[in-house]
Amino acid sequence: MTLFHILDILGVISFAISGSLVAMRIRLDPFGVFIIAFATSVGGGTLRDVLIGAQPVFWMKNTEVIYLIIGSYLFAILFRKKLKYLNKSLFLFDTIGLALYTIMGTEIGLNANFHPLIIISIATMSASFGGVIRDILCNEIPVIFRKEIYATACVFGSITFLVLHNLNVHEPIVYVSTFFVVIAIRLVAVRFHLSLPTFYTKK
Amino acid sequence: MTLFHILDILGVISFAISGSLVAMRIRLDPFGVFIIAFATSVGGGTLRDVLIGAQPVFWMKNTEVIYLIIGSYLFAILFRKKLKYLNKSLFLFDTIGLALYTIMGTEIGLNANFHPLIIISIATMSASFGGVIRDILCNEIPVIFRKEIYATACVFGSITFLVLHNLNVHEPIVYVSTFFVVIAIRLVAVRFHLSLPTFYTKK
Amino acid sequence: MTLFHILDILGVISFAISGSLVAMRIRLDPFGVFIIAFATSVGGGTLRDVLIGAQPVFWMKNTEVIYLIIGSYLFAILFRKKLKYLNKSLFLFDTIGLALYTIMGTEIGLNANFHPLIIISIATMSASFGGVIRDILCNEIPVIFRKEIYATACVFGSITFLVLHNLNVHEPIVYVSTFFVVIAIRLVAVRFHLSLPTFYTKK
Repeated sequence: MTLFHILDILGVISFAISGSLVAMRIRLDPFGVFIIAFATSVGGGTLRDVLIGAQPVFWMKNTEVIYLIIGSYLFAILFRKKLKYLNKSLFLFDTIGLALYTIMGTEIGLNANFHPLIIISIATMSASFGGVIRDILCNEIPVIFRKEIYATACVFGSITFLVLHNLNVHEPIVYVSTFFVVIAIRLVAVRFHLSLPTFYTKK
Repeated sequence: MTLFHILDILGVISFAISGSLVAMRIRLDPFGVFIIAFATSVGGGTLRDVLIGAQPVFWMKNTEVIYLIIGSYLFAILFRKKLKYLNKSLFLFDTIGLALYTIMGTEIGLNANFHPLIIISIATMSASFGGVIRDILCNEIPVIFRKEIYATACVFGSITFLVLHNLNVHEPIVYVSTFFVVIAIRLVAVRFHLSLPTFYTKK
Repeated sequence: MTLFHILDILGVISFAISGSLVAMRIRLDPFGVFIIAFATSVGGGTLRDVLIGAQPVFWMKNTEVIYLIIGSYLFAILFRKKLKYLNKSLFLFDTIGLALYTIMGTEIGLNANFHPLIIISIATMSASFGGVIRDILCNEIPVIFRKEIYATACVFGSITFLVLHNLNVHEPIVYVSTFFVVIAIRLVAVRFHLSLPTFYTKK
């Protein structure tokens, strides 16, 4: 089992838990919660595979993904009372998923020999799309358009990955650095309510 | 013409009529009604083909699908006054489409040799996605998240199909049994306002 | 550089500007504006490529598209005060994009030897999908469902293209005629608030 494979598993688990938490918050029934967990977990990777043309999409080739989602879903349900500080748990799992999918998207883009700008686009899309689907299905304002920096963290994570990769840095170090860049940007942004400045346009 | 082919045609017709009915209810113009009829009718099968990688998607390979949609659309418009009990007509066509697409999704998944869990996912997605698109485009609460059991009926229909198929039951009987399982679950759920129990989570 | 290639570039630019304008109007941050510009610009073509099975999708094979979007985005930001009459600028760029994507969708459908009805569907979808995504992401009523004729203009544009093409009319003339048919229908529809009549259905 490679490091990439482990990150993949952790990414699926993180987003499945984050999806379950949001769905339970809006009190969907058990099947509805599972649908949201599933969509959040595989959404970004599915978009990535469809755009690249790597079909059948990853979770169809790899049944383990569905078992992981079912497990994460049951975990979230069973421990929903332990996950007291729901907003914090949600932020935690969402951010870990975001960082892991940024790494995977960049790695897959590199292996397919895309241009760096395309790789960054793929990584950012596949990392943030799961959360966007989750929020649209749950009728929340998509996380990507809320005040705090979100997708921008993936952009910087992916750039970090590409720069270190080009400097021939050892792969696990590239992964870990990317992971911490994404986490750090999100943490700092949310902690200090940082957001990008906006333009003013006459109506 | 195979049995599968006939079910396919009936599924397209049912969903096209259900889409037209919802679109006329919110008083879209004729072209808007056609777009909704088209999207409802081919939405699920298009998602299925794109995820599996069977492109061009089915309605591009098979022009008859578009003629069927145009015919169903004209039928729904012409007989809109006969379809007096609109909610009942809508429920009828939506449920028939749901059952037929569950059968087709399971059959296609089986032919592609996917794992049973993946087959059930594909069948459920492709059967319920048309109705979800219809409701999102028409600004209704997606049918899948309303109280009564919807996608759960597809899950049980698909399981019925797989179990009977593994017992080597004759194909038409497998089809008919699946059809009636989906219809029966939906009928019972709507008749007795059955829904799955929900979790409670602290906000 | 072929005529087709030039139209392609102009289409990308027009939709990228139209996306930026809508996103600035609802005061998204700079990254949000870029996401909307990107989604509006490549949305229709991406849907087209995914449905046909021409993956990786066009903007992954052709990095120039991303540079064009970045340039159009910067242009829209820098000149946002010059684009005073925002609604008029928006209408202008959206309509030009619509006409150009109708031409490209029809051309691509013809080259893939699809049935005329399928070609018209592909052209209409790929031309109007960018604007629909833009409006959904920005929480506006999708342009396709507003009163004035929108997608219908693409249908007539695509039919014009196919008829002239079958009459062996010289290609640039086919392109220009299609362009003006789409523009003219939109101009007349918006100028005189034309819309299709609607049906009446009992609730």
